[in-house]
Amino acid sequence: MEIKVLHQVMDWNEDVSDEVKETLAAHHICMINVMGSPGAGKTSLITSLIGSLKANWRIGVIEGDIAGQTDAERIAALGIPAVQLNTDGACHIEAMSIQHILPELPLDDLDVIFVENVGNLVCPAEFRIGESLRITLLSIPEGDDKVEKYPLMFTDTDCLVLNKYDMMPYFEFDESRVGANYKTVNPDAPLFRVSSRTKDGIQELSVFIEEHIRKAQS
Amino acid sequence: MEIKVLHQVMDWNEDVSDEVKETLAAHHICMINVMGSPGAGKTSLITSLIGSLKANWRIGVIEGDIAGQTDAERIAALGIPAVQLNTDGACHIEAMSIQHILPELPLDDLDVIFVENVGNLVCPAEFRIGESLRITLLSIPEGDDKVEKYPLMFTDTDCLVLNKYDMMPYFEFDESRVGANYKTVNPDAPLFRVSSRTKDGIQELSVFIEEHIRKAQS
Repeated sequence: MEIKVLHQVMDWNEDVSDEVKETLAAHHICMINVMGSPGAGKTSLITSLIGSLKANWRIGVIEGDIAGQTDAERIAALGIPAVQLNTDGACHIEAMSIQHILPELPLDDLDVIFVENVGNLVCPAEFRIGESLRITLLSIPEGDDKVEKYPLMFTDTDCLVLNKYDMMPYFEFDESRVGANYKTVNPDAPLFRVSSRTKDGIQELSVFIEEHIRKAQS
Repeated sequence: MEIKVLHQVMDWNEDVSDEVKETLAAHHICMINVMGSPGAGKTSLITSLIGSLKANWRIGVIEGDIAGQTDAERIAALGIPAVQLNTDGACHIEAMSIQHILPELPLDDLDVIFVENVGNLVCPAEFRIGESLRITLLSIPEGDDKVEKYPLMFTDTDCLVLNKYDMMPYFEFDESRVGANYKTVNPDAPLFRVSSRTKDGIQELSVFIEEHIRKAQS
């Protein structure tokens, strides 16, 4: 019974996702869905990317959280248009929520929107939200067995960011295990090693993102 | 529509949870639901607790994962009866799955069953599985803002374990923030500082768990 209902909800979600895509295409906006576990470092990564990209591109942010608004406040403090989307208990963002919230952002004045999804390595991967690009974060402290355990999040993404990479000396993390498993489930997608603290790897990731921003502009 | 369906599923789940509770009570077994983010250290904590408890109690383990069986293999290698429960994509364990899997364990020869839930700081908290005790893990690398952002997981638990506590020197983690927010949402539940690596705090947590095991025995 549960599975049948899930399909109904998701079919509906896919339709709205396509509508969101059309709205964004009309404004030549690249929307990036940032996903990962709680504490993987999604907000810090977005903050670092804003620092790297804001000279060339006009950026907006949608901060998804079950509750609270600390992340949106962090982004707004950088002078970036930010909206907090509280899911009130739901474990992922759905396209309908994005459709409702988009008019709160100055769409005519944006090139790229980062959407920080709810911290969750499972459910967000199942729901398209009209994004042009998906980024999955895996932080070093989470461990090297996550691709096997949470395959969809690594299969259905456009790139993998190994985040908090500066923490490698303090954890037993077999990078070759992650790399091999990721290549198996998602052979053509790139992998980036990033530290938001030291900014290592932010430049390489920014180049990749800019390719997608330019694609949305053309 | 989605919310209505969720309630249907959960009502059903509560009924089965009560049935599981009765089965366990008939066998005087204390079942412990271990919840937390991916990579919070659930398997390592269970492994450490087995080391601490096995001299006095007969232990079984149910390892919940979306896919894979590495965790059950880790536990079985300790000579502990272990069953792997693969949810095949689902983001949490439901009572029905526990009901199906319990006969795979030697219930007449067990005092305590650890259930490692799917790594997820959201959904598992919504689903009772017939447990006597809930343990929520928050690892230091995940950050100190998680109680505000994922309130249900910290409200609806019997204790909070601050895990990977040996990592405190390497992360900016304001323990007083977590402590204050936890006390607000869950005033009577204890908080334990634990490192599975150094075994610090395992003894204190074991004493707490043993109280609950004895309760199930009486």
